[in-house]
Amino acid sequence: MNEAKAKAAEEIRATKQREGLSWAEIAEAIGKPKEWTVSALLGQHPVPEDAAVKVGELLGLSDESVQALQRQPYRTGLGDAANDPTIYRFIEAINVYGPAIKELIHEEFGDGIMSAINFKLDVSRRPDPSGDRVVVTLDGKFLDYNW
Amino acid sequence: MNEAKAKAAEEIRATKQREGLSWAEIAEAIGKPKEWTVSALLGQHPVPEDAAVKVGELLGLSDESVQALQRQPYRTGLGDAANDPTIYRFIEAINVYGPAIKELIHEEFGDGIMSAINFKLDVSRRPDPSGDRVVVTLDGKFLDYNW
Amino acid sequence: MNEAKAKAAEEIRATKQREGLSWAEIAEAIGKPKEWTVSALLGQHPVPEDAAVKVGELLGLSDESVQALQRQPYRTGLGDAANDPTIYRFIEAINVYGPAIKELIHEEFGDGIMSAINFKLDVSRRPDPSGDRVVVTLDGKFLDYNW
Amino acid sequence: MNEAKAKAAEEIRATKQREGLSWAEIAEAIGKPKEWTVSALLGQHPVPEDAAVKVGELLGLSDESVQALQRQPYRTGLGDAANDPTIYRFIEAINVYGPAIKELIHEEFGDGIMSAINFKLDVSRRPDPSGDRVVVTLDGKFLDYNW
Amino acid sequence: MNEAKAKAAEEIRATKQREGLSWAEIAEAIGKPKEWTVSALLGQHPVPEDAAVKVGELLGLSDESVQALQRQPYRTGLGDAANDPTIYRFIEAINVYGPAIKELIHEEFGDGIMSAINFKLDVSRRPDPSGDRVVVTLDGKFLDYNW
Amino acid sequence: MNEAKAKAAEEIRATKQREGLSWAEIAEAIGKPKEWTVSALLGQHPVPEDAAVKVGELLGLSDESVQALQRQPYRTGLGDAANDPTIYRFIEAINVYGPAIKELIHEEFGDGIMSAINFKLDVSRRPDPSGDRVVVTLDGKFLDYNW
Amino acid sequence: MNEAKAKAAEEIRATKQREGLSWAEIAEAIGKPKEWTVSALLGQHPVPEDAAVKVGELLGLSDESVQALQRQPYRTGLGDAANDPTIYRFIEAINVYGPAIKELIHEEFGDGIMSAINFKLDVSRRPDPSGDRVVVTLDGKFLDYNW
Amino acid sequence: MNEAKAKAAEEIRATKQREGLSWAEIAEAIGKPKEWTVSALLGQHPVPEDAAVKVGELLGLSDESVQALQRQPYRTGLGDAANDPTIYRFIEAINVYGPAIKELIHEEFGDGIMSAINFKLDVSRRPDPSGDRVVVTLDGKFLDYNW
Amino acid sequence: MNEAKAKAAEEIRATKQREGLSWAEIAEAIGKPKEWTVSALLGQHPVPEDAAVKVGELLGLSDESVQALQRQPYRTGLGDAANDPTIYRFIEAINVYGPAIKELIHEEFGDGIMSAINFKLDVSRRPDPSGDRVVVTLDGKFLDYNW
Amino acid sequence: MNEAKAKAAEEIRATKQREGLSWAEIAEAIGKPKEWTVSALLGQHPVPEDAAVKVGELLGLSDESVQALQRQPYRTGLGDAANDPTIYRFIEAINVYGPAIKELIHEEFGDGIMSAINFKLDVSRRPDPSGDRVVVTLDGKFLDYNW
Repeated sequence: MNEAKAKAAEEIRATKQREGLSWAEIAEAIGKPKEWTVSALLGQHPVPEDAAVKVGELLGLSDESVQALQRQPYRTGLGDAANDPTIYRFIEAINVYGPAIKELIHEEFGDGIMSAINFKLDVSRRPDPSGDRVVVTLDGKFLDYNW
Repeated sequence: MNEAKAKAAEEIRATKQREGLSWAEIAEAIGKPKEWTVSALLGQHPVPEDAAVKVGELLGLSDESVQALQRQPYRTGLGDAANDPTIYRFIEAINVYGPAIKELIHEEFGDGIMSAINFKLDVSRRPDPSGDRVVVTLDGKFLDYNW
Repeated sequence: MNEAKAKAAEEIRATKQREGLSWAEIAEAIGKPKEWTVSALLGQHPVPEDAAVKVGELLGLSDESVQALQRQPYRTGLGDAANDPTIYRFIEAINVYGPAIKELIHEEFGDGIMSAINFKLDVSRRPDPSGDRVVVTLDGKFLDYNW
Repeated sequence: MNEAKAKAAEEIRATKQREGLSWAEIAEAIGKPKEWTVSALLGQHPVPEDAAVKVGELLGLSDESVQALQRQPYRTGLGDAANDPTIYRFIEAINVYGPAIKELIHEEFGDGIMSAINFKLDVSRRPDPSGDRVVVTLDGKFLDYNW
Repeated sequence: MNEAKAKAAEEIRATKQREGLSWAEIAEAIGKPKEWTVSALLGQHPVPEDAAVKVGELLGLSDESVQALQRQPYRTGLGDAANDPTIYRFIEAINVYGPAIKELIHEEFGDGIMSAINFKLDVSRRPDPSGDRVVVTLDGKFLDYNW
Repeated sequence: MNEAKAKAAEEIRATKQREGLSWAEIAEAIGKPKEWTVSALLGQHPVPEDAAVKVGELLGLSDESVQALQRQPYRTGLGDAANDPTIYRFIEAINVYGPAIKELIHEEFGDGIMSAINFKLDVSRRPDPSGDRVVVTLDGKFLDYNW
Repeated sequence: MNEAKAKAAEEIRATKQREGLSWAEIAEAIGKPKEWTVSALLGQHPVPEDAAVKVGELLGLSDESVQALQRQPYRTGLGDAANDPTIYRFIEAINVYGPAIKELIHEEFGDGIMSAINFKLDVSRRPDPSGDRVVVTLDGKFLDYNW
Repeated sequence: MNEAKAKAAEEIRATKQREGLSWAEIAEAIGKPKEWTVSALLGQHPVPEDAAVKVGELLGLSDESVQALQRQPYRTGLGDAANDPTIYRFIEAINVYGPAIKELIHEEFGDGIMSAINFKLDVSRRPDPSGDRVVVTLDGKFLDYNW
Repeated sequence: MNEAKAKAAEEIRATKQREGLSWAEIAEAIGKPKEWTVSALLGQHPVPEDAAVKVGELLGLSDESVQALQRQPYRTGLGDAANDPTIYRFIEAINVYGPAIKELIHEEFGDGIMSAINFKLDVSRRPDPSGDRVVVTLDGKFLDYNW
Repeated sequence: MNEAKAKAAEEIRATKQREGLSWAEIAEAIGKPKEWTVSALLGQHPVPEDAAVKVGELLGLSDESVQALQRQPYRTGLGDAANDPTIYRFIEAINVYGPAIKELIHEEFGDGIMSAINFKLDVSRRPDPSGDRVVVTLDGKFLDYNW
């Protein structure tokens, strides 16, 4: 259902490699956080018209891709990309620590969840003498079970 | 393979509810971060002998449980707890944002992963006028593909 | 088995975006409820000939698409669209509340089911000062186990 | 992880059958909607202390059950109950109409979801000359994708 | 959720073997078709009180079993009994002929289904010189897709 | 492995819709039962040469399709067509009644199975004042476990 | 559904090890082929009364086990025993050579199958200077697709 | 990974049908057992250069197919061909008799397996007055667990 | 099928922890490699009688455990232990490098496999200034596809 | 997501077969270990620009393939190649010996894992009078659970 968006993503990745552009530079060009930008350009969010047009100009995208970027996506999960080691480590972290996160959310907030919709995330590097660290911050509104 | 550890976890949760103790209080009693403490007491990490003994005294655990806590675990995944909404939102976040996280790690660090072993996490509350937020920080050493 | 219907759906969604038409406008044009209309045009119901022709004219569809819309579908399930958060929340609601719904149907009606065939549904917005609400009403004939 | 809650649910169902009590009567006794009550007593919600005690007195439950009802649950999904025809019809309805519901939510509200947490549901009977109908209303707050 | 019903079924099968009773004899004793009777006593239908009591007397069942037979079941599917060759041949028949059955239902009746609720079945032997035949008749009300 | 047969089936269904032919008419033209005919033309049985040629003439099929119809098929199961409600009801009937069918076959015939190979089926309509009925008769030779 | 048969199998294997009896000796005692005997005593076939009684005397089995051996089994498949290397090699042989076997059966016999019911098998050792060989012969009646 | 081999197999099957050649004739032409020949030409074994060339001449294959036949295959399993009744009966035989085969191999040979690599098989017809029989002989070297 | 062996393994692990014995010391006591010893005592290999008796004396095992250790196992795979990070890294290595290993085996040896039966492995530590290394050597006889 | 890399791999394997080049020769040409080289050219590692260009010249690859080789891969697992016998034996070895490897790593190093990222492997032949052996050495840095 997302074939046009997948093609747009392929076009973006190929141009980006050829032109030597970084995700950060593209994000800056449209004035959005880099994490949102990558997600949206890979097809996970609808891109507002002006941003889609700007990305289209910056990367010389086809009209179809500029249209496709604006369309509402089906967010259909990872498929066999779940086995990719870079992605799998996050799944493993949830496997190992999921129950502890759950207990601590309930202890602090009561019965409810962290929203994955009213939500943002940040990926950054923290220098460390024994090896720099990847720091991923998940930040979502607490929603209580509220009948 | 973790039956004794699972029984210990049940004993801990039952006592904790009866005594009205919080995870934070138990963590403080053994001088460990609360996130590590919950994970370890639920059976995901071997507990050092002195901490196991202290928890045993604090909660009046059986000798078998104190022994079991010290044993090396099999970290066997979430099973059907993966459907629990509080846990599932984290899986959904990885589903939706996993590819973006992967792209940004490679852009910043090159080919490699965030370690889930040399790793810690923090669960906290951030006050927000439009509703307080759950903030979960995953912090792992970058490991580059290094033949 | 539904490839021609899937192509028709793609053609419909692309035209609809380009022309700025809403599902409600299309539904009105053929005199059908909007929920039935979207389902049918996405390929889940055979479309009666006159309605198919009218939609074809409204959206400028190819003859193949007008034919395909009228064909009896295979209703083959969600596939990986089951992971889409907008759809998944309904699956989660059934996971969490399915047994309660079952108990209450049996208490009220005895042994039997709500038909999903003699069935209609309504999707609407209910304004609410603390945030508008999505209200989805499932309305199916009760069928009792009747040997 | 929910063994004690499952035992409490079994005790409740057995007593209810023996005493000839209805879910509606139990719900009334604790002053809660019947849909919430059934879910909670089957183990899907933590029951507030006073309600747990009242149910315990009404049905003559053991102390363990009264305690267990108050505990935070793991909401672990339907397992093989997903095959039960009364429950399956709801899954089928989501299979058949899920994409249409998604399209209509996005058309009306934009990109986002119906919350399954800030959520309630109603199960009722609507008399109909050609056979009474089961009407299930899902009512959840709209949450927009909000970075 | 059906443990008490499963125990009752075990008790029934054991007694039946010991006493040398046939399903047909038990069905006759309660005045029901043999197909319904076997299904119900194996736990797939709630048994009316008088029939449950009669079966209890005929086979000398425990009170718990007589109670359990009357309870509303969760019809949870075949599990690994789906591999049993006697059962699997029916699954294979649906695999091989399912699409043909579907085409013929739609040709004869239009868009809709055979009800599996307003439904009965018959299992009988048809003598045949080249080997007697198992004849299973599925007989369900046609339900048309009716919005 | 059945691509050529699948193409033939598509060609047949498209022509049949365009020409307004029924399965019954096609079956009559080749002098075979309609149930066998639909199965075979959809690719589940090899079609004898003369019948394949006759169908080819009747429907104006390509030579490739006439060839493909005669080829031995791989009968590869339903895939996601198992979710189609018209087909699923038969799977549900086997889920709910499979064990009862098994018990009755063994009671009547001893240890063995109904053949799904020496087998035929019939799909017909039975008029009924409270709604016509779909009657599907499965008729297979009994085969006893015979070492 | 086979718990009593599984207990009987356990009792048989334990006694057999303790008494140092071979399967061949047990098979001889009841006058049956060893392959049938092992299958039946492990629970895959109902054992005729006289053979069940003889095995019971030979191995000193409990009355429950002697009864259970005679009961009709559910043949429920291998479960995780499918991973056992000794069993897996047979699955692999079918994976690798299944299509060739199918082609050759159809070339020799036409459209149909080898029966797994009117079927016997033989396991034997064939001496070979470069290492003795396991020879397993599957021998089943050909059944042609016969409407 | 085997696309070129799959195309070669298709080309072989189509030509074989058109020319009316049997597998036995092709096997004879290259001087190999028919079972090996079918497996290899369907893509399960690399074909030695001279045999590939001979098959190419006999059937008029393209150069690509002659090349592809010689390539080392990925033997990737049956996929949905496992549901084909002709193939499934062999899987069922392993399901039903796998544990008995295992017991008898260990009784005769000790701990180890039948090799599926140092292995051959034979498919033949055995005339029988009550119906001819398919006889499949699996013949593999015994390999003992040998540290 | 391995319950007695699983109990023996539990008894061994509990005693080993209590007595402070290492696997290396147990292996030395029975004169076997430590890798074989751990596998066998966890239930993956039958233990010869004298070794089983020696282990029984060393650890004070019950007679049942000493018997169970000698029994032929079903090697039933990892189940949910496949998610354990220590084990998963090996699965990941096969996922990432499996095709390369396959190519290199075929290049060096031709068509065939590394035996997992005529096989041994070694787990050792290799000191390294930038962090000691786990070195696991898999060593199996090459078996060529040999009809 | 790796389609371009998969095409490059196909081009490489076809040229390599046609030119009669070995993996070892290609590896030597770019000055990398053969194990890394095969993995990388099959698409599991990004290839540095100079090596990609050299391989392109050596094998006469298209520009697209030379570009694709340099791109960061998604390492998506084995899919149905996991059934290939040459690859499966490694999975079986982990199934059978995984728990033993885990115990020995923890005994020697404490709680932690062998890295699959800071990792290399070696595939070699060890001559042996009773049949040469495949020796695969997995060599990864130990990482301790380090909060």
